[in-house]
Formats: sequence, C-alpha cells, structure tokens
Amino acid sequence: MTLFACRREAIAEAVGTFILVFAGTGAVMVNQISDGAVTHLGVSFVFGAVVAALIYTLGHISGAHFNPAVTLAFWASGFFPRKHVIAYILAQSFGAVVASVALLASLGPVANLGATLPLNDNWLQSLVLETILTFILMFVILGSGLDRRAPIGFAGVAIGLTVGLEAAFMGPITGASMNPVRSLGPALVSGLWQHHWLYWVAPILGAQLAVLIYRQLSNNFQDIIRDIT
Amino acid sequence: MTLFACRREAIAEAVGTFILVFAGTGAVMVNQISDGAVTHLGVSFVFGAVVAALIYTLGHISGAHFNPAVTLAFWASGFFPRKHVIAYILAQSFGAVVASVALLASLGPVANLGATLPLNDNWLQSLVLETILTFILMFVILGSGLDRRAPIGFAGVAIGLTVGLEAAFMGPITGASMNPVRSLGPALVSGLWQHHWLYWVAPILGAQLAVLIYRQLSNNFQDIIRDIT
Amino acid sequence: MTLFACRREAIAEAVGTFILVFAGTGAVMVNQISDGAVTHLGVSFVFGAVVAALIYTLGHISGAHFNPAVTLAFWASGFFPRKHVIAYILAQSFGAVVASVALLASLGPVANLGATLPLNDNWLQSLVLETILTFILMFVILGSGLDRRAPIGFAGVAIGLTVGLEAAFMGPITGASMNPVRSLGPALVSGLWQHHWLYWVAPILGAQLAVLIYRQLSNNFQDIIRDIT
Amino acid sequence: MTLFACRREAIAEAVGTFILVFAGTGAVMVNQISDGAVTHLGVSFVFGAVVAALIYTLGHISGAHFNPAVTLAFWASGFFPRKHVIAYILAQSFGAVVASVALLASLGPVANLGATLPLNDNWLQSLVLETILTFILMFVILGSGLDRRAPIGFAGVAIGLTVGLEAAFMGPITGASMNPVRSLGPALVSGLWQHHWLYWVAPILGAQLAVLIYRQLSNNFQDIIRDIT
Repeated sequence: MTLFACRREAIAEAVGTFILVFAGTGAVMVNQISDGAVTHLGVSFVFGAVVAALIYTLGHISGAHFNPAVTLAFWASGFFPRKHVIAYILAQSFGAVVASVALLASLGPVANLGATLPLNDNWLQSLVLETILTFILMFVILGSGLDRRAPIGFAGVAIGLTVGLEAAFMGPITGASMNPVRSLGPALVSGLWQHHWLYWVAPILGAQLAVLIYRQLSNNFQDIIRDIT
Repeated sequence: MTLFACRREAIAEAVGTFILVFAGTGAVMVNQISDGAVTHLGVSFVFGAVVAALIYTLGHISGAHFNPAVTLAFWASGFFPRKHVIAYILAQSFGAVVASVALLASLGPVANLGATLPLNDNWLQSLVLETILTFILMFVILGSGLDRRAPIGFAGVAIGLTVGLEAAFMGPITGASMNPVRSLGPALVSGLWQHHWLYWVAPILGAQLAVLIYRQLSNNFQDIIRDIT
Repeated sequence: MTLFACRREAIAEAVGTFILVFAGTGAVMVNQISDGAVTHLGVSFVFGAVVAALIYTLGHISGAHFNPAVTLAFWASGFFPRKHVIAYILAQSFGAVVASVALLASLGPVANLGATLPLNDNWLQSLVLETILTFILMFVILGSGLDRRAPIGFAGVAIGLTVGLEAAFMGPITGASMNPVRSLGPALVSGLWQHHWLYWVAPILGAQLAVLIYRQLSNNFQDIIRDIT
Repeated sequence: MTLFACRREAIAEAVGTFILVFAGTGAVMVNQISDGAVTHLGVSFVFGAVVAALIYTLGHISGAHFNPAVTLAFWASGFFPRKHVIAYILAQSFGAVVASVALLASLGPVANLGATLPLNDNWLQSLVLETILTFILMFVILGSGLDRRAPIGFAGVAIGLTVGLEAAFMGPITGASMNPVRSLGPALVSGLWQHHWLYWVAPILGAQLAVLIYRQLSNNFQDIIRDIT
C-alpha cells in the first residue's frame, strides 16, 4: 500500500511536527501562564530554534517538512514524489494535533492553545501577509536547502533564522503561522476555527509562488536539485 | 581498574559539567542579584549557548554528555560502553557539585543556587513535562549527533538551540532541567531536596524513550552510528 | 544588451533586497503597531537574521549583495565586473521600493515606513558613525566571504551577526542603515528625505575604506579571492 | 626587525581589536544614551557576535586573538612564537585605545566609555570570577579552535557564544571583561583606573590555567594542534 511505502518518513514527520507544535505553541501558552516571562521575542526564538534543530535531526530521514505547504511546494517543484504527499500531510496533521492535546492535558486551556488569529479580525491583511511570509520561507528553503550550489549543512541555520525572524516581525499581526498544521492543532483542540481557512490558503499559495519565482534563477531546475533522499 | 580506563574522558566530563552548571545556574543567581537584568530569556540563552560551546570544545574527547540521562541513553543505544557509565556519571556529579560550591562561595546563598522546583508544587505536571523535554533533547542528540547521515559539525548548534529553547518555553513551569546533575549540584549545596527525585526519573525516562523511537527510523541502528571516538 | 547579461542575478538581487527591506523595516513598523512588542533588540535580530538567511539562499546566484555600497566595493576590489554594477544597483533599488510599497499597502503609514534618521538631527555624527559601521560590515564581508582562506560556508553567519550587532548597538543613534537602498525605500514611500544623502555617502565611503585596508592583509589581493561565480 | 616580521598580523590584530572594543563598549554607551533600549542582553549579544564575526574575518590572518591573555596562553601552549608576543599585545592595545577615542569623539563622555568595574568595589570577588570566566573562554578556544580533532569552522560559533554567554551572566558582577585591552581602552580614555590591575591579572591567570588543564586531555599536546598559520 502506498501509505506504508514511506512508514519511516511518516514517523519522522509526525514526531517532528509534534515537537515543533509542542514547543512553539507551548511557548505561547507558558508566556501567558508566566505573565509574559517568555516574551514575544522568546516565543519567536522558540519557533525558529526548534525548526533549525529538527532540520538537523530529521532532514536526512524525511526531508524535514513538518508543513503541508512545504510538502506541496516540493511536489510542485518535481522533487517530491506525488505518492507520498497524502501520507506526509496526514502524519504532519497527526503530530500537530497530538501536540495540542498534550499541551491541553499538561498546561490546561490557556491562550487558546496558541491558536493563530488575524489582528483586529482583518482576514484580508493576514491573508496577504501570510502569503508573503510563506513565500519568503519557501524561497529560503529552495535556495539554501534544495539548491546544491548552496554550501552544505547551513540550510538548518538559514531556515530556522527565517522562521524565527518572521515570527518576530509579523507575529503580532497575523500570528506568523506559515504552516497549516501549526494552526490546525490549536484550532481543533481549542475549537477556535475563526478565519482558519486562511492559514491553509495563504501558506500553500505563498509556497507555490516561491517555486515559480525560484525556477527563474536557473537554466534547468532539475539540474540544481541537491541529491537528498 | 575500569574507572581509570577513561581518565581523560572523565576529566573532560567533570570540567564540562562544571562549566555548564557554573554558567547556567550562575545566570539564575546573577539574574536575582541584578534585579532581573539577565532576564528569563537571557538565562535560557546562557544554558543553550554553554551546551553548544562545550560540544565543540569537548565532543571529540568525551562525546560531551555532561548529563547522566544522556550517558544512560547512549549506553542503551549500544553505542557507549557499559564499563564507562559509572565513571561518567561520577565525573558529571563531581563537576556539578563543585560548580554549585564555587557559586555559593563567590556569590553567596541567593536564588537557592538555581535549584529546580516544580511550579506550584505540581510534581506530576513537572514529571510529565520533564520527560517530554528530555525526550526531545535526546531525540535531537541522536538525530543530529549520533546519526552519520546528518551533516557533520552541526550537532552543537542543534543541541544548543534545543537546550536554549526548552529552557525558554518550559523553564517557568518545571525549571527545564533535563539533566539530573544540573539539579543535583544546587540541591546538595542549598539543601533544597524537594521533589528532587523527579529530576532523575523524568530525564532518564525521556532519554530512553527517545532511543526507542529513534530506532524506528532506520533498518539497522548500528549502521547509522557515526564513528566518533 | 549589458543589463540583460545578468538577468538571473538581477532577479535574485531584486527579490533578495525586497525580502531584506520587507522584513527589516517591517519589523520597525510592527514594533510601533504592537506598542513595542518586537523590541529594539528584536528589530536588530530581524535585520541580522534576514541577511544571514538570504546569503545562504542567493549567495550562489548573485553573490548576495542587496546593497549598492557592497556592489561598488566589490567592483573596486576588482572582483565584480563593472558592466553589471548598474544592473545590480537598479535591481536593489527596485526591490527595496517595492518592499516599502507593500508595507504601506498592508500595514498603513506607520513609523515613517522605517525610514532612517540621525538622532537629534545630528547629521555629522551619523555620517561619521555610518561610515565606521559600513567599514566594519564590508571588512567582515571581505574577510569571511571573499577571502578563500576563511572556512567555507560561515560567511552568512559572520555577516548576519555583524548586521544584527550593528543594528543593536548603533540603531538608536544613526538608524544603522549601512545600505543606501534600505534607506531609499522608506524615504521614497514616506516622502521623508531629510539627511537622506548621508545614507548614500557614508556607506559607500565606509565600504571603499574596508577594501583599502583589507588589501593590506595580503601580498596579492587577487590571489586570495574565493572563486564564487 | 622582529616587530615588523608580522606587520600583516599586527594590522589584523589592531583593526580587529578596534572593531571589538568599538562595538562592545559602544553598546554599553548607546544603551545609556537610549535609556536602556539596547538592554543588558543586547550588550552581551554585541560582544559575542562581534567576536564570532571577527574570528571568521581575521582568523586566517592573525589567529584572531584580540586579547593579550589569549596571546600569552597561545605562547605558553607552545603554539605561538615568542617573538611575536610583544607586537601582538601592542597592536591590540593600540586598536582598543583608538576605539575608545573614537567613541569619546562621536558619542561624548557617557557610561565611563564602557569601563569595567567590580560590583560594590568587591575586587576579590571580581578577581576570582574573572579568572574563572577567562579560564572557560580559553578552554573553549583550545578545544574548539586549536585542537584539530574538533569539527573545522565552528570555533567562531563556539567562542562567540562563550563570550556572549559570559557577558550575559557575569556582566552585572564583574563587567565580564576577560580581556585586558577591552578594559584598557575605556580606562585610559575615561581616566577611571580603579581596580584596573585585576583585569590584567585575572584574565592572564585564567587563560594560563586553561592551557594547564587542557594539556591533560591529550597524550601529546603538540600532536593535536591544528595547522592554522
């Protein structure tokens, strides 16, 4: 069966996304519990650092997506096999939901479990900005991670910094999700589904846009793809 | 004699753990002396940075454990020789206690020498969360450090970031020890033994769990182990 | 036509400078919108992190200048072809202006779009300090990036840290631009042209000075240049 | 003449130490001018980041000491030629003093030019703690930078993190100098010589101690030295 063909990769994506959502949205929750001791900058640091650490931990196993928008963009780029797309997204969703359940069980129902919400209910603003944020993230992933002309090993640093800086500068406006399942876990467990759709549409759109534009930077896109898996 | 067979490694573990506990719990103490000038995020940065620096300084000598939970997990993974386990744990304990004594002598009895305590005396919450935290830490150690498929050299960055982010997001709840001797030093010197047992049980449990799960990510665990020592 | 000879590089410079200005000056704007949640240190982190990430993303395509002062210094060093100078500077300016327009459209006219202004209208102080700041930045670029005796791959880390630390320690005095187009975008869109000239003169001067001094550190400057493009 | 035999290295040490002191003590001064906008953690970040950046910029030229205690420790380790010791220390002192003069000229006489002073005039406490701090710093330099068993290139990260974390956790007590000339520049220009001697004695002592202890970690110290110059 197709879904079992990548059992190992699926476990890696599930565990990785669990860690990402547990740490990142856990930081939002503990920041509220501790009356702001973590700080907004601290929450951004946690999101960026956990992504960097996970890329070095699981990049060699599953490619370290932890994000349906990234998986779909890799598929669109011709680099990721279509038959694994569904398994990856299911594993990511599972890991994210388990993380939110674990946080609810251990910390209680605080800070909406770290759910993402557009500032002042302005969904159009967040839709546009999340699209740009994920465009930037995917552009960095393609340049530093997929392109074999980039120095090897530094993709984790580059991508972690990008997640951290985007959380730092746009978190107060859009929640800086850039990742449908990072928004799904808290939404499902807190029951807060308001404007949830935009955290699927914008990241997927932004990541596709990055593939489109990055393609312009090489004669032959297939030629520059690093041999990862 | 067995204990002397790894004299050099034991010195490295003792000095390394001394530096880790001196800097990390020293930051907690100076934060109180300076009325919070270091900040919670600053304390987390110190813990993460010192671990990263020490991995680059001593990784090639002792493997840079500085943590009995890590030593026991490496032993369980079949990578670390059983005969050195006791020497490592003794050296780590010695380094940690000397650090707490040095901090008491130079800074006085402030902030309980940086002892870890569960928030609101909720030991069950901290037991569960410390287990998850150390699971994450050991999972990152295995993936980025032990697995030779990961890019060489970046384990220090990945593990340092993990310690830093876990201190940042769970420090206010559990103290974010993830390391029995990091809790032992301050406990022994301040005499504050409350719930101390959980900072041995949870880290050891969490680290073993990481070995169990990481094993699922390869056909043959022995094949993917990097040749370190 | 000359300008078209480096179409791919020009796209990379335009997109890279767009991301740099969108994130960096966006952080200044969101910091005001969120009543200081990003913090001055957070803004500095965003500027440094985005430069590091972009070097790993586009360094292998365009050299990752994103800054006319850097392009002119590379040209003066004999490393960058004269015929591409104009195309690079136009692409950088275009990317920066589009970023400011996008920020105005999505966030509104706050914080002068992140325009740089000398503290207390003291243009002489800022002229001198911006010259020193860009001297330091270009000196680090030459040593860590251009000189092939430096360890490969770490230029992004070194240069990103330099931008971040200079923003952190001199931002309150000069705005820590070090980059004419980083100042151009906000100036054009906010209409705030006061002392704008100094953000062209000082960076260009400082970067040239760095080339002059770095030349003293080798017998034959051409011999130590890394083969990048 | 001996002093001229390392003209290039001396220029590198002078320029590097200038940048280190200009940025680090400049951060202390601007933090006061901006009513604490830089923050104590920000000052620590600047010190750590500038050291990391300079190691990647000048490590391949002069070894990137920027610190008489480091130069003397390298000499004691048998790695650095005796005939260059004086030239290095003179160049470092010159760079530091020029930095303090430049800061006085551009920012005025604020924050004692960033001079280091023991908290509460407790010189004994600072003497002991600065010795330990510099021991840790030199130990990290030897392990990550000099020892060729460490992964290549990461010394800058490890040493920069160490300087940053030590400034973060001990800055409020001792000033976290770890470097005689970092204290000399501000002392000379501000005329504040109180307890200045300890910022020479402690760093030099601590660094020598590190050489003594690191020697225990190898059979033959000369065998493990990386071929740098």
